[in-house]
Amino acid sequence: MNVNSDRYTVGVDFGTLSGRAVVVRVSDGAEVGSAVHEYAHRVIEDRLPGGGAPLGPDWALQSPEDWRDVLRTAVPEAVAAAGVSPSQIIGLGTDFTACTVLPATADGTPLCELEEFTGRPHAWPKLWKHHSAQPHADRINAVAARRGESWLPRYGGKISSEWSFAKGLQVLQEDPEIYDRAERWIEAADWIVWELTGVETRNVCTAGYKAVRQDGQYPSKEFLAELDPGFTGFTAKLGGEPSPLGGLAGRLTARAAEWTKLPEGTPISVGNVDAHVTSAAADAVRPGQMVAIMGTSTCHVMPSDTLAEVPGMCGVVRDGIVPGLWGYEAGQSGVGDIFGWFVETSVPGSYEREAERRGLSVHGYLTELAAAQPVGRHGLVALDWHNGNRSVLVDHNLSAVVVGQTLATRPEDTYRALIEATAFGARTIVETFEASGVAVTDFVAAGGLIKNRFLMQVYADVLRRPISVIGSEQGCALGSAIHAAVAAGAYPDITAASAAMGGRGETVYRPDPGRADAYDRLYAEYRRLHDHFADGAMLHGLRALRYEASRPGDEKEEDA
Amino acid sequence: MNVNSDRYTVGVDFGTLSGRAVVVRVSDGAEVGSAVHEYAHRVIEDRLPGGGAPLGPDWALQSPEDWRDVLRTAVPEAVAAAGVSPSQIIGLGTDFTACTVLPATADGTPLCELEEFTGRPHAWPKLWKHHSAQPHADRINAVAARRGESWLPRYGGKISSEWSFAKGLQVLQEDPEIYDRAERWIEAADWIVWELTGVETRNVCTAGYKAVRQDGQYPSKEFLAELDPGFTGFTAKLGGEPSPLGGLAGRLTARAAEWTKLPEGTPISVGNVDAHVTSAAADAVRPGQMVAIMGTSTCHVMPSDTLAEVPGMCGVVRDGIVPGLWGYEAGQSGVGDIFGWFVETSVPGSYEREAERRGLSVHGYLTELAAAQPVGRHGLVALDWHNGNRSVLVDHNLSAVVVGQTLATRPEDTYRALIEATAFGARTIVETFEASGVAVTDFVAAGGLIKNRFLMQVYADVLRRPISVIGSEQGCALGSAIHAAVAAGAYPDITAASAAMGGRGETVYRPDPGRADAYDRLYAEYRRLHDHFADGAMLHGLRALRYEASRPGDEKEEDA
Repeated sequence: MNVNSDRYTVGVDFGTLSGRAVVVRVSDGAEVGSAVHEYAHRVIEDRLPGGGAPLGPDWALQSPEDWRDVLRTAVPEAVAAAGVSPSQIIGLGTDFTACTVLPATADGTPLCELEEFTGRPHAWPKLWKHHSAQPHADRINAVAARRGESWLPRYGGKISSEWSFAKGLQVLQEDPEIYDRAERWIEAADWIVWELTGVETRNVCTAGYKAVRQDGQYPSKEFLAELDPGFTGFTAKLGGEPSPLGGLAGRLTARAAEWTKLPEGTPISVGNVDAHVTSAAADAVRPGQMVAIMGTSTCHVMPSDTLAEVPGMCGVVRDGIVPGLWGYEAGQSGVGDIFGWFVETSVPGSYEREAERRGLSVHGYLTELAAAQPVGRHGLVALDWHNGNRSVLVDHNLSAVVVGQTLATRPEDTYRALIEATAFGARTIVETFEASGVAVTDFVAAGGLIKNRFLMQVYADVLRRPISVIGSEQGCALGSAIHAAVAAGAYPDITAASAAMGGRGETVYRPDPGRADAYDRLYAEYRRLHDHFADGAMLHGLRALRYEASRPGDEKEEDA
Repeated sequence: MNVNSDRYTVGVDFGTLSGRAVVVRVSDGAEVGSAVHEYAHRVIEDRLPGGGAPLGPDWALQSPEDWRDVLRTAVPEAVAAAGVSPSQIIGLGTDFTACTVLPATADGTPLCELEEFTGRPHAWPKLWKHHSAQPHADRINAVAARRGESWLPRYGGKISSEWSFAKGLQVLQEDPEIYDRAERWIEAADWIVWELTGVETRNVCTAGYKAVRQDGQYPSKEFLAELDPGFTGFTAKLGGEPSPLGGLAGRLTARAAEWTKLPEGTPISVGNVDAHVTSAAADAVRPGQMVAIMGTSTCHVMPSDTLAEVPGMCGVVRDGIVPGLWGYEAGQSGVGDIFGWFVETSVPGSYEREAERRGLSVHGYLTELAAAQPVGRHGLVALDWHNGNRSVLVDHNLSAVVVGQTLATRPEDTYRALIEATAFGARTIVETFEASGVAVTDFVAAGGLIKNRFLMQVYADVLRRPISVIGSEQGCALGSAIHAAVAAGAYPDITAASAAMGGRGETVYRPDPGRADAYDRLYAEYRRLHDHFADGAMLHGLRALRYEASRPGDEKEEDA
């Protein structure tokens, strides 16, 4: 009997609204118990807990205590649900949304937990989707481009307002006292590991993808000084040499053992990011194995043995997914969000009633109608830019385009065209990688959208590739449990652990040649449209008009 | 006392689904009574009355007996409702949809009323929106362009499948026996006058706009022979020299007097078209006075003293609106139809319920929400090509484009953008006339959409012109009554009669300079979009895919 067949690890996935713990058997990855804890404060967007002035637009904060509560409740509940003894737990691993980042003291205390700062918005953790640092990101990009910073092409030519430096620069410029008092500027992914182990570590994944660390260096002091003289010492807040993924970060402290009801001294793996750790759960950690985590948006992660500058990627980081390989990340800013928006805003009551009568969701009903059409019957092509475009254009100020509607167009036609548009977006990304010399050998789907079989088939037909699907419904937490098994020494590396504990479901979606041929023609139209609107000449103009018209002084209604 | 203050005329408007009779006081145009009769057969689109094989796609026929029923019921009911004596009726005038055209014997009997032909689809009147003669129109356009026929530019470079020659050629090529037996090929506008008077006349309006008569000539025998040798003698079926608008066509026969309960011998004016006769009702019969009849689609008619070749116009005809001036016609293929399509297919149940709760129509509720926005706030621009584009592109195979949607876009945003798109379409037409040297001095609105005050204000702001509105809700029938007054000799000409009997409402929509400036910027985007998609490269490709995918053999569903 395999020594690991009665040993378990715990994976903890810290999402946007809740944290999930899963107990996983080390020998084969069987998920034997899980529990979810919803954050009491969810996302803090309007006012700080306890009140105060309203936050600005595009702010999004979180509370560290909500994260600790996941350790206190979801972890012991998952172990109890699994019916295993805490003594059988040989390790615990975590993954987090990113870049979710906070200012802390030298001992890891979040500044928002100091009484003097609890009413200061910039003392709180900034969630990944805090978007008000756009001016700061713009400045970083402009200065980096002018100086020809060598790291810039590693991020597709542009860094995001969501990332560590933009958010840090925002703190400096909007609340310098908080900036000064922040001895540490730390990803939540690393902060939670610090809470568990009492040891400060930084993981290579967020250091690379979110704090633009490349070739062993953060951006230079000269560069930082040019952004703002006060920003020159920023990297001193970022901790020491990052630790490798799957590495042992430390061991469970007595305090954290009390929270989790796990034995003190349990090995804790180095922090990680939800998307990237999914590769392990899908057993897709070899070169060319692209995992698409398809939910409200889509994140693409892929290890490769080739370094290239792929236009519009989110980033390429050495060891960023598994040690020894380049880790690529790309993204589609809107996917499931677009379908959700359509169902919420653009489907008539008659459809809602018919769906209800049939016992279907509106999504399900539209999917059924859309699936009955041959390719191209709707006469439509759309750009999936409702939430901007990350890859390959890196422009969040783009917006959507729908072409071809007539008086005969029905809701299911447009719904299908939007699904196809996201598939064309995915194909654009895959083709851009391959055109840059980075081979994509496999396409593996994960995330909530894998439940929609029609959508998966559209992707297979559009991509002209077989699409396999992750075997777990809790891919992030499973991936963290796999990393924990490596940190605990149960496997020599992530690749071996993934082969044993991760994997794919049996269903493989294979392209139909006839449909794929028809989609080639639609995709050609998509690319023509994409290239026409890519420069933003029209879309930025419309956005500018929108902002101007939103200024309070201009709120003038029509006379009529 | 004005001699005309106790004299009346009757105007009869033959629409697509019903006919309306209005009794009008000759002195001042007061509408003293009206009645409507709905056609028993409405539009014959599926099968002939009495059965038989299904009609083809895009067929649309009508029954002559339905038209006679309007004379039998609506006319006497309107006179009764007016409370005037038939002896006070000094004339009757008619207008009709066009080109609605039928084959008849030399005595005016419709071929569909001969027992031997009643089961033959081509023996029945083809309604204006019978669209299956497109291949025949394509051939006419191709041959005319190759030969450089001088009349072609008088129709914006392209004639329509709706018009007389295309429909006639279809009869020849699809049912040559019917073609041979048709001693007459006559507009319903003229046929109904023949029914009333017993005298065959042809009016200059349909002869010019629908039967491409220019400079006193129909297209040449050589041209017709090249289309099809069998078509060489077609113009012999079109009757003699056309009669002027407002002229006396004849006098009521004993039979028609029995139908209408009007005195035998009552003067009957020359036939006319619903859109064109509206100019008289709006008192807009002087050079540069453009009347836009805004309903499901919009028709623009305008007299001018200048002859020019305006790109994409529907036609320019000497004496075509009033004698002595050039009559211009242009058109927007979809206007109210687009808003109707949007409400039917793209507005969620929550909006329907809120509208109902508020006691509003969905149109009304969307309008209220849309009207509260400053110009440009929605960030959208759309092309109003859901039903193709007549003026200025003359391409019914175009389709719509919507640009700028985001996850924040609400239904009222898109609704407003569609209203604006039709206003931009109108501005494009007005600017094209002026760029061609044909001055547009007034813009007068008529038709069902004038009830939407918000929409009218958008048009004023977009056009940067004051918009006045026709004074009557029964503009077509009033126009026919005005023509009848001229034919009866109560006024020397249409201009004098219109001044006395036609007119505008008190409300004038005036452009707001601030909004007009903002619209200038949106209109510039519209024109950029318009010019980009005008060549049809993408839109025709999508349509081709749609047709290919609609072939029965390809009705292959997705596997999933």
